Amino acid sequence: MTSPDGTDFGLLSPGSAWSAAEATTGDRAVLQAMLDAETALVRAQASLGLAPAWAADAIGAIGADAFDPPDLARRARAGGNPVIPLVKDLTALAGPAGEHVHRGATSQDVLDTALMLVARRTLAPLLADLDRTAEVLAGLAAGHRATPMPGRTLTQHAVPTTFGLKAAGWRHLVLDARDRLAAVDRTLPVQLGGAAGTLAALGADPRLIAAYAEQAGLAAPLLPWHALRTPVADLGAALAFTAGALGKIAADVLVLARTEIGEVAEGVPGGSSAMPHKSNPVRATLIAATARRVPALAAVLLGSLAAEDERPAGAWHAEWQPLREALRLTGGAARDAAQLAAGLVVHPDRMRANLGLTHGLIVSERAAAELAAELGRDEARALLDEAARRAAAEGVPLAETLAGHPFDPDPATYLGAAPALVDAALTREAAR
Amino acid sequence: MTSPDGTDFGLLSPGSAWSAAEATTGDRAVLQAMLDAETALVRAQASLGLAPAWAADAIGAIGADAFDPPDLARRARAGGNPVIPLVKDLTALAGPAGEHVHRGATSQDVLDTALMLVARRTLAPLLADLDRTAEVLAGLAAGHRATPMPGRTLTQHAVPTTFGLKAAGWRHLVLDARDRLAAVDRTLPVQLGGAAGTLAALGADPRLIAAYAEQAGLAAPLLPWHALRTPVADLGAALAFTAGALGKIAADVLVLARTEIGEVAEGVPGGSSAMPHKSNPVRATLIAATARRVPALAAVLLGSLAAEDERPAGAWHAEWQPLREALRLTGGAARDAAQLAAGLVVHPDRMRANLGLTHGLIVSERAAAELAAELGRDEARALLDEAARRAAAEGVPLAETLAGHPFDPDPATYLGAAPALVDAALTREAAR
Amino acid sequence: MTSPDGTDFGLLSPGSAWSAAEATTGDRAVLQAMLDAETALVRAQASLGLAPAWAADAIGAIGADAFDPPDLARRARAGGNPVIPLVKDLTALAGPAGEHVHRGATSQDVLDTALMLVARRTLAPLLADLDRTAEVLAGLAAGHRATPMPGRTLTQHAVPTTFGLKAAGWRHLVLDARDRLAAVDRTLPVQLGGAAGTLAALGADPRLIAAYAEQAGLAAPLLPWHALRTPVADLGAALAFTAGALGKIAADVLVLARTEIGEVAEGVPGGSSAMPHKSNPVRATLIAATARRVPALAAVLLGSLAAEDERPAGAWHAEWQPLREALRLTGGAARDAAQLAAGLVVHPDRMRANLGLTHGLIVSERAAAELAAELGRDEARALLDEAARRAAAEGVPLAETLAGHPFDPDPATYLGAAPALVDAALTREAAR
Amino acid sequence: MTSPDGTDFGLLSPGSAWSAAEATTGDRAVLQAMLDAETALVRAQASLGLAPAWAADAIGAIGADAFDPPDLARRARAGGNPVIPLVKDLTALAGPAGEHVHRGATSQDVLDTALMLVARRTLAPLLADLDRTAEVLAGLAAGHRATPMPGRTLTQHAVPTTFGLKAAGWRHLVLDARDRLAAVDRTLPVQLGGAAGTLAALGADPRLIAAYAEQAGLAAPLLPWHALRTPVADLGAALAFTAGALGKIAADVLVLARTEIGEVAEGVPGGSSAMPHKSNPVRATLIAATARRVPALAAVLLGSLAAEDERPAGAWHAEWQPLREALRLTGGAARDAAQLAAGLVVHPDRMRANLGLTHGLIVSERAAAELAAELGRDEARALLDEAARRAAAEGVPLAETLAGHPFDPDPATYLGAAPALVDAALTREAAR
Repeated sequence: MTSPDGTDFGLLSPGSAWSAAEATTGDRAVLQAMLDAETALVRAQASLGLAPAWAADAIGAIGADAFDPPDLARRARAGGNPVIPLVKDLTALAGPAGEHVHRGATSQDVLDTALMLVARRTLAPLLADLDRTAEVLAGLAAGHRATPMPGRTLTQHAVPTTFGLKAAGWRHLVLDARDRLAAVDRTLPVQLGGAAGTLAALGADPRLIAAYAEQAGLAAPLLPWHALRTPVADLGAALAFTAGALGKIAADVLVLARTEIGEVAEGVPGGSSAMPHKSNPVRATLIAATARRVPALAAVLLGSLAAEDERPAGAWHAEWQPLREALRLTGGAARDAAQLAAGLVVHPDRMRANLGLTHGLIVSERAAAELAAELGRDEARALLDEAARRAAAEGVPLAETLAGHPFDPDPATYLGAAPALVDAALTREAAR
Repeated sequence: MTSPDGTDFGLLSPGSAWSAAEATTGDRAVLQAMLDAETALVRAQASLGLAPAWAADAIGAIGADAFDPPDLARRARAGGNPVIPLVKDLTALAGPAGEHVHRGATSQDVLDTALMLVARRTLAPLLADLDRTAEVLAGLAAGHRATPMPGRTLTQHAVPTTFGLKAAGWRHLVLDARDRLAAVDRTLPVQLGGAAGTLAALGADPRLIAAYAEQAGLAAPLLPWHALRTPVADLGAALAFTAGALGKIAADVLVLARTEIGEVAEGVPGGSSAMPHKSNPVRATLIAATARRVPALAAVLLGSLAAEDERPAGAWHAEWQPLREALRLTGGAARDAAQLAAGLVVHPDRMRANLGLTHGLIVSERAAAELAAELGRDEARALLDEAARRAAAEGVPLAETLAGHPFDPDPATYLGAAPALVDAALTREAAR
Repeated sequence: MTSPDGTDFGLLSPGSAWSAAEATTGDRAVLQAMLDAETALVRAQASLGLAPAWAADAIGAIGADAFDPPDLARRARAGGNPVIPLVKDLTALAGPAGEHVHRGATSQDVLDTALMLVARRTLAPLLADLDRTAEVLAGLAAGHRATPMPGRTLTQHAVPTTFGLKAAGWRHLVLDARDRLAAVDRTLPVQLGGAAGTLAALGADPRLIAAYAEQAGLAAPLLPWHALRTPVADLGAALAFTAGALGKIAADVLVLARTEIGEVAEGVPGGSSAMPHKSNPVRATLIAATARRVPALAAVLLGSLAAEDERPAGAWHAEWQPLREALRLTGGAARDAAQLAAGLVVHPDRMRANLGLTHGLIVSERAAAELAAELGRDEARALLDEAARRAAAEGVPLAETLAGHPFDPDPATYLGAAPALVDAALTREAAR
Repeated sequence: MTSPDGTDFGLLSPGSAWSAAEATTGDRAVLQAMLDAETALVRAQASLGLAPAWAADAIGAIGADAFDPPDLARRARAGGNPVIPLVKDLTALAGPAGEHVHRGATSQDVLDTALMLVARRTLAPLLADLDRTAEVLAGLAAGHRATPMPGRTLTQHAVPTTFGLKAAGWRHLVLDARDRLAAVDRTLPVQLGGAAGTLAALGADPRLIAAYAEQAGLAAPLLPWHALRTPVADLGAALAFTAGALGKIAADVLVLARTEIGEVAEGVPGGSSAMPHKSNPVRATLIAATARRVPALAAVLLGSLAAEDERPAGAWHAEWQPLREALRLTGGAARDAAQLAAGLVVHPDRMRANLGLTHGLIVSERAAAELAAELGRDEARALLDEAARRAAAEGVPLAETLAGHPFDPDPATYLGAAPALVDAALTREAAR
């Protein structure tokens, strides 16, 4: 029986297509992870003398290629999850080892464990991409620690800042994301509880959980978590955080790459068939799209904590795709962020030119302080308001109106502690 | 070049696997819809003398099978959308007609139009499933218009209602969903505007929009809607409404099918390999899972209304997958709701037995009214409070404590207007 | 007993503070609406001879000032809703009419009806603000139908468009929002069903619903909707749509008001105590903040459709605040959008200047067509690629590189159908 | 000038009304926190010799009562935040100290710091309520470690579990929530950066950040986080986690308290004016409502990470109310959870009775294993299927059909490792 051709190949997902995360979260990877979970269980049982080692070997030798995913998907509908038909096929394929397949386990033991394996396998390249991104950003921050550019608030020039401080902030967020993901990664647990989480058909022996964890390469939970969804909620939150952190970089790049601003550009921008000049910030666009989506997926995962009974009717089933999608999208965004950072073209000349756009108003804060010292607060403010009006309306440089008063119009000398803040931020260790 | 094997076959989506909606929203269907959009454009241009008819025929003869979807997905990354590589391949495949491919159009013209075609093609079976569901529910409502069962509020028995009234309410929601989806379906528009929505390279002739709509079988919009996302937002809202409406049915079935309640059961419940007795309400479970997910997808789509410029960098790209997923999930839920309704087993005997569980307290509201007429409000309440206490704590029937006072303990005679409300609800027309 | 001082005055809600919507959704307005619902019920009962008219008059004479809202809030905790203590106090205040208060009704009848009254009273000024906004935008669209400005896609200049077309698109979305809200407004229903929606203690007479609706000035529903939450879900979706539609305007203003772009400015921008020159687009900022929030509130409301039983334990209670907040936020945004539109300052000179920033590349699409006609597609593209490179990298005007070839560098002559599209869009009627 | 009466007193928020969190998050508390932030800044400046100590004392002596919150809300509209009018009023009230108010700071420095103080002050009682809840649950878990009850999956009886294991799981989640909130609480930072985060007008001296943190009693951040929103995103995620964890308890209580199940009851259930017998699980209902809402608020907060520039136009403003509401709602839910746990009435007799409802099927898993050992897997399954059919359809006890085969029908002897798992779970330390 063949699929009704509802297959997805990533056509609508350029942000994650052909990423490591796409491969580690695809249905074949999920299938393999379920098989790995089944094998780990038999190996764990064998380690406690509850199953023969040869059976574990036989079961472990059966790969994902032996199964027909679309047909499994079809048969998953009867019981509501893919483990039921998988176990049936695996038992048949295992021959004499078949009677040792899935003994005492429940479908959720296998599917939850498999999704934790999928998470582990997705997080490895994802964390590496974050590391790579952070490293490049460290270089940008150090290299541009004192490169002046307009600081912008509520879309308007405020006071000068440096591009290094911006890059240092990006890195800071990336490291925050890395810390959160790595912390979750370290605690990803196996799931094992049997029908209602009491291990009743699993020998009622909690040592089996530890043995299973050992075999699967995951952590051993204190309790079966069929209805205690901390690992999934934590993943959701950490992935949404990461998508948002990368989304901050993308948001800034999208502003700074605007035709009128031009302070940065992507190294490999996107083109257009019709408009030969187009140089679109496509990496930033795709990351921005992901940052809009993952929080909504996380909300579903966080909402699934409120799950009734020993296995809920709906809350559990609602997790699978959002979890996979959050992993995949964030993994794709990390890949794109690494590319974006590595290729980013910075234009200090444009930054400098933009600093001059307001005819000196970008240092009006300093002027206010300097004039207040000379004239008192009220008179200083009146003078400066008039100067600001002339600069904005008529383009008269602030320095001209303020001639005769102490006033340094150079934005590059009003960077505050920006370089020092960069230095401080770069003391933060990347790896742990 | 082959895919990195990140393909999805529906393994984690039993709620939509093998549904009509899965097929109409799959990547091959999306690809075909993009080709249909390209063809409709050339046909429209031909109808206005802007392209030769033979070119339209040649282009229209090229089917989705001629393309390699994973490779398109790979190449979509460069420009950020799949239309760019599609147009390249289509142009090459079209031979001499190639120069007429995609003339004057922008990628968004084709992708938006394609997604509207996908929506149209998904809604047809979806609406049919809703109709089927509504029809079965009408039968259940009529057949059980006076079948008494406990009305439950905040999880507790309140006063009696009828199963017919419950089924009539379900139908009412299904018809509400149908109305909302059908209204959106009727207005699904083509997209056509060219690079920035001015039709500049399309002959600057708004008549082309109408001709294109005619060819594509969609509505003609008053304006290009590259950045005016009403159709997508409306789809999101109507699909979330539908998922929620079906979710109400599922929520009720999940309560009523509980082991302790047993008032309804699914016709084809799900089993368990380990527990031979298990009879899980799987259809309801999968629908409930969908009802948890689609509102979050709709939130992304509604959030994408706030999109900057003539084409936003992220908000548009964030729509594609949530829209497809909302269509697919809701379509799958409609399929399952039709199956659930058609197979639903109703147990009036269990309803009747459950009505007796509170020893008469389920008609305490009536008792309060009757006693108040006899004894005055305060004395009545005191007497009833004592009776309620005895019933709840000691199992003494209300009728026993109230012996000597006028009191009808039969829940079946305290149905209020339930049957009349059913009759009224059934006057609502299903089709329009 | 006085409040523990958890009162909110709008300090963190500048977007809705002091708006009509704040007043119509405040706790005093909610309290008054609950009293109006109680009164309408007695009046309806009186109209059917089920209560004396004097009792309705007596109850209707009691205003919100007679109650202590913080104390009602405290006592609402016992039963989980504010109607229970309200009815107690109202009964006491009503003296001899007290026995006619809330007869046969359930708390939800009153609270749902009250929230529909609150919605009605909030939508009136909200719709008026949308009308006002649309009217101003119509003027901007007409006045600037041919005012050229850069069309921007993925943050980059694409081809020229007109400011009138942008304003016409804004108006189009505002009218879409208006249509959706007005449609919901027309159908806002009373709620009446009694304990479990059977009208059992209300005389079992559906005519009472119509009489109640008449008295309350709302629509009469076909069924009690205690657990059929269409009106709330529809409000959520329409409000999120409206917030998103206004958010589109805000998103564009925030881009166009950037220091480097300067094509529009708010009429009354926000200042800064420290930076005298700051001219922040505050209306747009506050609207943008609202557009980020309302979709999440709508997701909660759409999610509440999946509600179990005759009254759910949580899904209903989860609606109240998000519904109120969605009304309030959107009402505030409509107020601000009207102010923003009315005061918007347009700078055609800056638009014209920005059109020149790319040295002619903004009309490269036209150049490609013109050159292809002359040289063939491939040679034309090669020439243009070189011209684009020189323009972008060296600032050499496109016209210079293309000298000798037919090429019109004037962006103002490449507006496509923009003016005609404006005219077409303005044929859409605003009021209905 | 008085408010337009849009004040909220908690009338629609029974879940948080009159909680500690309501008071610590109310507008007066926010106002006081802003004043505390202003004072801490001057004290910090004084500690570095940048301001006189007497000025700090004078400013610190001005309390929230000196301000008119509704009027501040009104004036906050001009600049888009409440700090601008607050600083104006505070400066005027401070007399000669006025010139030292808010020197070099930006509005965001004060509002962000104030919201972190609000979070700190809300988390203290919230964490105490979680501790209290966990302690009570530990007692329930220990006391009922071997109290048998039906384990339920997908709404159906599966195999027996113990109430102690359920309570231990609840406690586990509460401790998980506590850990996450406490970790965030420990790192809540002050905000200080000045106009664009460079400290330019603050002496360009990063030591001021540490001094400010010292004075405010918050952590010192490595970088100003005007546009690096980790603290807010973390709070959102941890609060949503907590709401979900408590929502799990509520979801279980709502099931177990159902009229037909009756295994637990709230200690102080909610009543009904019309139905004297009603005993509603109101605490669980209100917690469940909160669990539906906070994830959506967290999604907004996580979404705000993707914020452009040195201060975004909208993303920052969108945080304030969702953060306050998430704190308030979760604080209220923690209060209610503590009450719910402390008062929970457990009915082991009803658990035991419900274990018998399936005529022995609840131990069919054990029967399958026992029979398979005797008869082989296939024959055992056939026999058991028949027995299950007779039990479900005709009520024939499983023991009767299986007479003659080894079969222990007592659910109390099939608890698996439930008691041991309880013991293990209770080894987890509560406080840290």
